[in-house]
Amino acid sequence: MFAHNKRLQYTVRVSEPNPGLANLMLEQFGGPQGELAAAMRYFTQAVSEDDPGRKDMLFDIATEELSHLEVIGHIVAMLNKGAKGDLAEAVDSEADLYKKIQGAGNDSHVTQVLYGAGTPLVNSAGVPWTAAYIDTIGEPTADLRSNIAAEARAKIVYERLIALTDDPGVKEALGFLMTREIAHQKSFEKALYSIQPNFPSGKMPGDPRFANTYYNMSQGPGEMRGSWNQGENWDFVTDREKQMAVDGGTGEAEVRLPAKEVDVLKQMAERTMSDPNVDPTTGAELGMGNQTLADGMTVQPGAQPSPGAPKLH
Amino acid sequence: MFAHNKRLQYTVRVSEPNPGLANLMLEQFGGPQGELAAAMRYFTQAVSEDDPGRKDMLFDIATEELSHLEVIGHIVAMLNKGAKGDLAEAVDSEADLYKKIQGAGNDSHVTQVLYGAGTPLVNSAGVPWTAAYIDTIGEPTADLRSNIAAEARAKIVYERLIALTDDPGVKEALGFLMTREIAHQKSFEKALYSIQPNFPSGKMPGDPRFANTYYNMSQGPGEMRGSWNQGENWDFVTDREKQMAVDGGTGEAEVRLPAKEVDVLKQMAERTMSDPNVDPTTGAELGMGNQTLADGMTVQPGAQPSPGAPKLH
Amino acid sequence: MFAHNKRLQYTVRVSEPNPGLANLMLEQFGGPQGELAAAMRYFTQAVSEDDPGRKDMLFDIATEELSHLEVIGHIVAMLNKGAKGDLAEAVDSEADLYKKIQGAGNDSHVTQVLYGAGTPLVNSAGVPWTAAYIDTIGEPTADLRSNIAAEARAKIVYERLIALTDDPGVKEALGFLMTREIAHQKSFEKALYSIQPNFPSGKMPGDPRFANTYYNMSQGPGEMRGSWNQGENWDFVTDREKQMAVDGGTGEAEVRLPAKEVDVLKQMAERTMSDPNVDPTTGAELGMGNQTLADGMTVQPGAQPSPGAPKLH
Amino acid sequence: MFAHNKRLQYTVRVSEPNPGLANLMLEQFGGPQGELAAAMRYFTQAVSEDDPGRKDMLFDIATEELSHLEVIGHIVAMLNKGAKGDLAEAVDSEADLYKKIQGAGNDSHVTQVLYGAGTPLVNSAGVPWTAAYIDTIGEPTADLRSNIAAEARAKIVYERLIALTDDPGVKEALGFLMTREIAHQKSFEKALYSIQPNFPSGKMPGDPRFANTYYNMSQGPGEMRGSWNQGENWDFVTDREKQMAVDGGTGEAEVRLPAKEVDVLKQMAERTMSDPNVDPTTGAELGMGNQTLADGMTVQPGAQPSPGAPKLH
Amino acid sequence: MFAHNKRLQYTVRVSEPNPGLANLMLEQFGGPQGELAAAMRYFTQAVSEDDPGRKDMLFDIATEELSHLEVIGHIVAMLNKGAKGDLAEAVDSEADLYKKIQGAGNDSHVTQVLYGAGTPLVNSAGVPWTAAYIDTIGEPTADLRSNIAAEARAKIVYERLIALTDDPGVKEALGFLMTREIAHQKSFEKALYSIQPNFPSGKMPGDPRFANTYYNMSQGPGEMRGSWNQGENWDFVTDREKQMAVDGGTGEAEVRLPAKEVDVLKQMAERTMSDPNVDPTTGAELGMGNQTLADGMTVQPGAQPSPGAPKLH
Amino acid sequence: MFAHNKRLQYTVRVSEPNPGLANLMLEQFGGPQGELAAAMRYFTQAVSEDDPGRKDMLFDIATEELSHLEVIGHIVAMLNKGAKGDLAEAVDSEADLYKKIQGAGNDSHVTQVLYGAGTPLVNSAGVPWTAAYIDTIGEPTADLRSNIAAEARAKIVYERLIALTDDPGVKEALGFLMTREIAHQKSFEKALYSIQPNFPSGKMPGDPRFANTYYNMSQGPGEMRGSWNQGENWDFVTDREKQMAVDGGTGEAEVRLPAKEVDVLKQMAERTMSDPNVDPTTGAELGMGNQTLADGMTVQPGAQPSPGAPKLH
Repeated sequence: MFAHNKRLQYTVRVSEPNPGLANLMLEQFGGPQGELAAAMRYFTQAVSEDDPGRKDMLFDIATEELSHLEVIGHIVAMLNKGAKGDLAEAVDSEADLYKKIQGAGNDSHVTQVLYGAGTPLVNSAGVPWTAAYIDTIGEPTADLRSNIAAEARAKIVYERLIALTDDPGVKEALGFLMTREIAHQKSFEKALYSIQPNFPSGKMPGDPRFANTYYNMSQGPGEMRGSWNQGENWDFVTDREKQMAVDGGTGEAEVRLPAKEVDVLKQMAERTMSDPNVDPTTGAELGMGNQTLADGMTVQPGAQPSPGAPKLH
Repeated sequence: MFAHNKRLQYTVRVSEPNPGLANLMLEQFGGPQGELAAAMRYFTQAVSEDDPGRKDMLFDIATEELSHLEVIGHIVAMLNKGAKGDLAEAVDSEADLYKKIQGAGNDSHVTQVLYGAGTPLVNSAGVPWTAAYIDTIGEPTADLRSNIAAEARAKIVYERLIALTDDPGVKEALGFLMTREIAHQKSFEKALYSIQPNFPSGKMPGDPRFANTYYNMSQGPGEMRGSWNQGENWDFVTDREKQMAVDGGTGEAEVRLPAKEVDVLKQMAERTMSDPNVDPTTGAELGMGNQTLADGMTVQPGAQPSPGAPKLH
Repeated sequence: MFAHNKRLQYTVRVSEPNPGLANLMLEQFGGPQGELAAAMRYFTQAVSEDDPGRKDMLFDIATEELSHLEVIGHIVAMLNKGAKGDLAEAVDSEADLYKKIQGAGNDSHVTQVLYGAGTPLVNSAGVPWTAAYIDTIGEPTADLRSNIAAEARAKIVYERLIALTDDPGVKEALGFLMTREIAHQKSFEKALYSIQPNFPSGKMPGDPRFANTYYNMSQGPGEMRGSWNQGENWDFVTDREKQMAVDGGTGEAEVRLPAKEVDVLKQMAERTMSDPNVDPTTGAELGMGNQTLADGMTVQPGAQPSPGAPKLH
Repeated sequence: MFAHNKRLQYTVRVSEPNPGLANLMLEQFGGPQGELAAAMRYFTQAVSEDDPGRKDMLFDIATEELSHLEVIGHIVAMLNKGAKGDLAEAVDSEADLYKKIQGAGNDSHVTQVLYGAGTPLVNSAGVPWTAAYIDTIGEPTADLRSNIAAEARAKIVYERLIALTDDPGVKEALGFLMTREIAHQKSFEKALYSIQPNFPSGKMPGDPRFANTYYNMSQGPGEMRGSWNQGENWDFVTDREKQMAVDGGTGEAEVRLPAKEVDVLKQMAERTMSDPNVDPTTGAELGMGNQTLADGMTVQPGAQPSPGAPKLH
Repeated sequence: MFAHNKRLQYTVRVSEPNPGLANLMLEQFGGPQGELAAAMRYFTQAVSEDDPGRKDMLFDIATEELSHLEVIGHIVAMLNKGAKGDLAEAVDSEADLYKKIQGAGNDSHVTQVLYGAGTPLVNSAGVPWTAAYIDTIGEPTADLRSNIAAEARAKIVYERLIALTDDPGVKEALGFLMTREIAHQKSFEKALYSIQPNFPSGKMPGDPRFANTYYNMSQGPGEMRGSWNQGENWDFVTDREKQMAVDGGTGEAEVRLPAKEVDVLKQMAERTMSDPNVDPTTGAELGMGNQTLADGMTVQPGAQPSPGAPKLH
Repeated sequence: MFAHNKRLQYTVRVSEPNPGLANLMLEQFGGPQGELAAAMRYFTQAVSEDDPGRKDMLFDIATEELSHLEVIGHIVAMLNKGAKGDLAEAVDSEADLYKKIQGAGNDSHVTQVLYGAGTPLVNSAGVPWTAAYIDTIGEPTADLRSNIAAEARAKIVYERLIALTDDPGVKEALGFLMTREIAHQKSFEKALYSIQPNFPSGKMPGDPRFANTYYNMSQGPGEMRGSWNQGENWDFVTDREKQMAVDGGTGEAEVRLPAKEVDVLKQMAERTMSDPNVDPTTGAELGMGNQTLADGMTVQPGAQPSPGAPKLH
């Protein structure tokens, strides 16, 4: 069960309202790398997790991310405080209010007009948060790797936001949030490597014929090799012929069909064949104006008086 | 700040695994009327709310909805418990596992294959949760009405789910969740009517010429009147002419353009005019086969031997 | 069946083109609180409604909302008229056109470049309209409440748009549209209260143990009580222990599994356990540079010359 | 199988960085009319196509569109090059960086903060690409028409982008991409008209009673006729009565229900009827302030002292 | 302005309820090729259209498509009529109701549980309708081609639905709807070819160096030529070298950067270089179990007793 | 530039058509962990990458993933081959075709009816692919971690699909695809650890006060400690008071507002206050039927005869 205390995990001190900056901060409120994504990622893993250690850790961190969502939300709310009153009470003239909303820059017009200078779960472009951002698949060695990567990404977005503001209170709170992503990444790393073996994920081993092969699919200027494709562990394949049909087959796709289906497909093929033996007049040619068409036929669009003259009015 | 205790708000006792039922329950986990939508609706309102009474209430209820999300999530997790193991360990033969997954019915194949029989934030069709479900706009008399409606809807979806299962533990937990929606609706009603006046929402009064008019836009068989459009408070308008251009103007749209723009628009109009005075041959006519076209011109598609015969192989 | 007359329900008179303002107006064309959402909300309810009075009313209002969609659409079209010509005919130099599009502000660049200064069904951020905005669930006391709330929200967004422009023709048309939301809300209120009883929605009564309880989930500074949680009708629960496992059970989740499933789950648990008794070296530690790792093992990344030196070019 | 060469299909020469222009170019990278949409449209058609001529052509063009995706992507990358470094290294002061990001205009703040000045698959509003943009349905005469239309649209968006920049290298590369859309449209036209007949699509003929009728559904000022609704091939129906129930029936919807269902529906109808014979007091009336209500009952909200006075703190 | 008459454009006679079939019909109600997409496509074009002939036609057809939306909606409503009552009144036992909902097949469980057996704007998979389905870009020769293609697709989906049911009333109404798509396609074709020239779309001509070239990008087994890439009008390019850098340049991307930016980028490059000269130990290697790592270093995960033994409970 | 050869990277041999299985395979065609997501993830990274080693590797792997998309697409196409013909030619009776489509199970009805038994870019629930699945942010140590995680997830989904079919040709091709994910993960690991240091990501160090703290946010039954939160590197905080306002401040949010804004906000607060000192009658109470309301006022809904009796017809 969740409980709540109205004191924040980190005090939020904002120097002055700034709806444009508020809007950028939404990236970590309702954006793909933001705190709701983090909280829901770990919360949903926690709910279906059976391992007691991971379950406990996932609930710990999910709960903290919810508390971070609250911190970043309050930063947005404080930065929008002036805009909220202006809009609700409309004390400015229309021209002033229009200028204010346009002048705030970026997409803050959406936050203001549609959401009343509130804290909507959208990113800084106004795109609503979607659970498609969450990549949990219910296998711990894969999900922990996803969590590690998610923390690394969130750390970077905080780093960028910190670089964008000189409001000391905002910088400080963002610094706290950024640091916690580092700490969480460390926990997830420990939990991952406490599963042994953890690579490759899952139960099924790879096919040894293809597990150490590197296909050099992109050739031409700029090729460079490194530990990711050279060394004794790698079989490096550059020959285009050896990259195709690597099973030694034809490289074609086939299915065994019942005879009746074959007949039906033949019928469909015949009905819908693009006949390669003709050069038909096309709609594009009709649309090229008063020109001689490819097949020698002349079309003069517009030349035929319409049977019933239109009645304009 | 949020805190968490691993005891649930309501004990979850599931009689036996049932992935098909689990999938239906997702409606209230990651569906539009589900608990995440409720929790986030109230949480985001709480964060930007300035009125101390509403702010407190919104945090109370948001926190409880998160706790409900946890309860319904554990119902899903318990119902999926068997499927999760089967899938991860693949102890059945392939044919058996395929049958199990297909046999569970509805969209539970997605939950199983993609999400590992976990608790994803999707509805029972597998559609990811989106913040587009949240209709908060940052004005309390509107938002409280939205909350009232949201609680009424959630109550109904629980009622339907209760009617679908005879597992007593599931029914009981769902009954608790359903009842809490009723209680929450009562709180939101009290908070709304504690604002006076609260209708119409916002500051701006309606235009008295149009505030009590009912336009009878749908006519024909089946018309019926009631308090929603009859009585001394309503001006009921049936005459089609009086439904149009109700301001007394032309009913047309106009804009005053600079002269230069007018010239540009004329140029565009001329260039892109669909000339009503001709009856052109069309692509559709080219495609109707070997027929006489509308304008008397004969087209024989396919009749021209292609200059270079294709090389088949 | 629908019929159409090219006269608008309200005359649209725009003083001068303004693509930036056009873009803000899209909120009520293709935005979540806009006229398409309203029209489709009521239209789909009308189609499945069986009650003759509501069916008639829903078709009336749906049809009017379609007519409003047409009015707001023409406002957008008039405000964009100049931009449309400029773009299609490209009469300005490139630098001028770029400046114009950037200078219009907000997201009007999308409307112009992608939609040709037309009237796309997107909100002012360019997010395409989605039926996820519609919250109809097919139960009249819930759906009427949703309609009431939707009208209240739409009223507010119009109020905000009116506050943003000093073009008298635009203000007047928006005022009409805003007023009609008030009138519609009144009709929906009458229709709702003409159903008795209408609370709680649906057939199933709440569980009396939980219907009048208020859980004080958010504590700490700023708590305040009011009619929403105090008075003789409320049982106010502050004790954290009494908020958990309110059914009197353990607060845990359980399912009865067949013995075979239990074995499979044990096997999975063992295979994927995060072992709490070891302190493994992690990837993060490998990535911290030339440092002593947590378990005393020294890793010197970069120190091993790669077996095959890379061939640069 | 795909192979890649790091040389582009067309050389990209950008004069100077311009993140605002980069953002507009995203329209053709991750926008609805962009190169990913084109590549995936043709690729997925190619995979399921059985006709050898069309399959070959679709793979040819899909592969070229992927190569165009690469060209437009490199234009974006070059235009963003400066922004990428600034952001990653944060060499400017915070105020300068904030100004740079805001000053770049349009939605480039998203591209920079969220995507690190990279090349995300979003349109110029930051809306992520979705396969909902692809309208393939697996019937060649329909799909080829869709392809023809898609090429025409893509050509126009390139034309608009060309009109927006005076960077000669960018213009030149965009001109190449635009021209290729023209060439592709020609190929799809040839392939369509090589199927005979190709209109109407599919196997089933239209009902001759309705195939040549034009219903004049929109009447009033501004009507105009042309070849699209006049001439000997059209039956033009203006009479509203003749536009309804054109089958000669009642124009109503009916279903034959089992007797038991009829009883259940009656029960539901009675329970949920909006009674037209009463004029109930509504929530809106409660919210109108201290006024006489419609039914003569006086409500004085706020007048009743609350049983337990709230304890503020 | 729109007006409505409760008589349908085509009488709907359904033989018996069938929620599974109802669900398939949703494809044309809220699916990508369905009637809402059609109505909104033409309606939004009509609103911004300046050409009087096209504007009139677009309003005519948009209005008819809305009337079709109503017809297909009533088919869905009638097919769902029984399910709606069962669900709302819950007269069956839970087990029976569960079986009914599962037994209806496909995704009708969503329609029933979430939408109360109503008529939601989703496709047959339950995916909400999105304006991303609409591809209007505001240029008439492109948009008319899009409309032509859209009608062809809709015709096919109706054809498929007709093939799926033997209910004569449903077949008949679907046959009407299908036929009207054919008629609409004819109108759009006439309107397109009444613009001359209409190919290529827009104002800007193609670059003659690339307008008649066909790049044979997909080679290998199964190549075939036809009018789409052979004949005097085509320059057929098979040589891979001639497909690259077709402008005669290097095929590389370049941008001229200010010196300061170059320094910043160098700094970033150095900091983030993946050094090709080392073969580092990786996280994957740590996770491979008790094995000798690539660089000869032995890692024994699990061997280090954790400093503080965990306290289980 | 991309080039294509119609030979597949791996030969596809399908034993018999199976539209239900085809539909499950879509998970890896157009699903979140599928091959399009992989290809586009690496391709977009490659385009904006400046490091030559990573750029080359990313293009290599992106190109291979496109080739895998082609392999899995052909598996789907072969499994759907029979369904495609049946549907296009409609040789079965309607009842048979309906049964076939329902009988195939899961969501294959969508694939068949909407997409003509083709290969749409949707997952197995019919949800269209979205670029929201791609989590690239333009920082190499974060993006490589994201790639590592993505490969691990894709490996698992293939493992599940392999466990679901006993068709040896399908199993074999899936085994190849699964194995390649393992190989790609290895390459990404090498590339990540070739950057030193790579943890934490980015330039900015964490705040040492919070980088090694573990907040025990979830307490109660089931707690367990391990290397992720115990040991000399962790500061483990359980005291709830010490988890709040960890900066030592008040834990509240504040902003310094200009005096004028303060006045406006006060005005708004007063206007929209939910007055805690009254107990108002609410809409819910009006809807509870003929009961005595909380404040002693009696409401008798339905008792007032409507002024004008409705005219039914």
